[in-house]
Amino acid sequence: MKHSEKTIGTKKIFKGKIINLRVDNVLLENGNTSTREIVEHNGGVAILAINKNGNVFLVKQFRKPFEKELIELPAGKLESGEKPEECAIRELEEEIGYKANKIEKLNSIYTSPGFSNEIIHIFLALDLQKTKIHRDENEFMDVIEISLEEAKKMIDTGQIHDAKTIIGILSFLLKN
Amino acid sequence: MKHSEKTIGTKKIFKGKIINLRVDNVLLENGNTSTREIVEHNGGVAILAINKNGNVFLVKQFRKPFEKELIELPAGKLESGEKPEECAIRELEEEIGYKANKIEKLNSIYTSPGFSNEIIHIFLALDLQKTKIHRDENEFMDVIEISLEEAKKMIDTGQIHDAKTIIGILSFLLKN
Repeated sequence: MKHSEKTIGTKKIFKGKIINLRVDNVLLENGNTSTREIVEHNGGVAILAINKNGNVFLVKQFRKPFEKELIELPAGKLESGEKPEECAIRELEEEIGYKANKIEKLNSIYTSPGFSNEIIHIFLALDLQKTKIHRDENEFMDVIEISLEEAKKMIDTGQIHDAKTIIGILSFLLKN
Repeated sequence: MKHSEKTIGTKKIFKGKIINLRVDNVLLENGNTSTREIVEHNGGVAILAINKNGNVFLVKQFRKPFEKELIELPAGKLESGEKPEECAIRELEEEIGYKANKIEKLNSIYTSPGFSNEIIHIFLALDLQKTKIHRDENEFMDVIEISLEEAKKMIDTGQIHDAKTIIGILSFLLKN
């Protein structure tokens, strides 16, 4: 059978830079009512950029929710009206200073479907051409270039925990 | 170099059933200040349960943030003081009606580290013993039993988008 929840009310709680929060009142299929806390996010991209040596580029940056530095794929939020592929090419150049001449979609993932509508589009970027890093003045990160085998080992040993990064790396390894 | 952000203020915005929201004021390493919108979540588990035929159990349920049914691994939130492994065994039995006699950790993933501290611990459950489904009265889902190859194809064809589910399946396929 097809499951669904009918919206019978909604309350906007917060409008932020990155996320909005609303709480919906819903009617369940057994006639009961409940609430759903929903974090609205505009979506983003992550880029698995592989150079001619077969190495992948990762970035290390401080992430406030975990109060520590995390190692992740280069990534960024979609700007209003921007296509995911354009966003991937732009963010890759901004964060690591390479232009991708070949780009293909690997996957679109829902990061936390229980409470958020965030979608991250993961792209494979190849045929890289060195240009110039040009990050926002308030953006701080280090670029790491490692082999895919090393990246896989960092997942297995718990040095990489980020979902989009794990999916990008494992998807590529299973394909190749 | 080591990057960090110093908290210079914090404001609680919302306290809910599943998530809390706060906004931190932070001092950046260049001396500028900024804000960080942070969704606090208590964490959860997901279970890749594989039976003696080599099939995996998935659940199909309505997810309000996407206004549609999604196919995911059985999963659930950690209760206060509960160990992830206990939570995995409990949720598997509640949602699909099997007790796992063997359980091992596959991975702990950060779903959205830019704005949330949610961690999902993914477990592999084996040696399954049929018991009884006992969901909450307001929980509605269908159980699907398919081969790992079919599950992989559902990822490749965009029928599965959920991050924890993709990581559970790809991690297992790469190991075996």
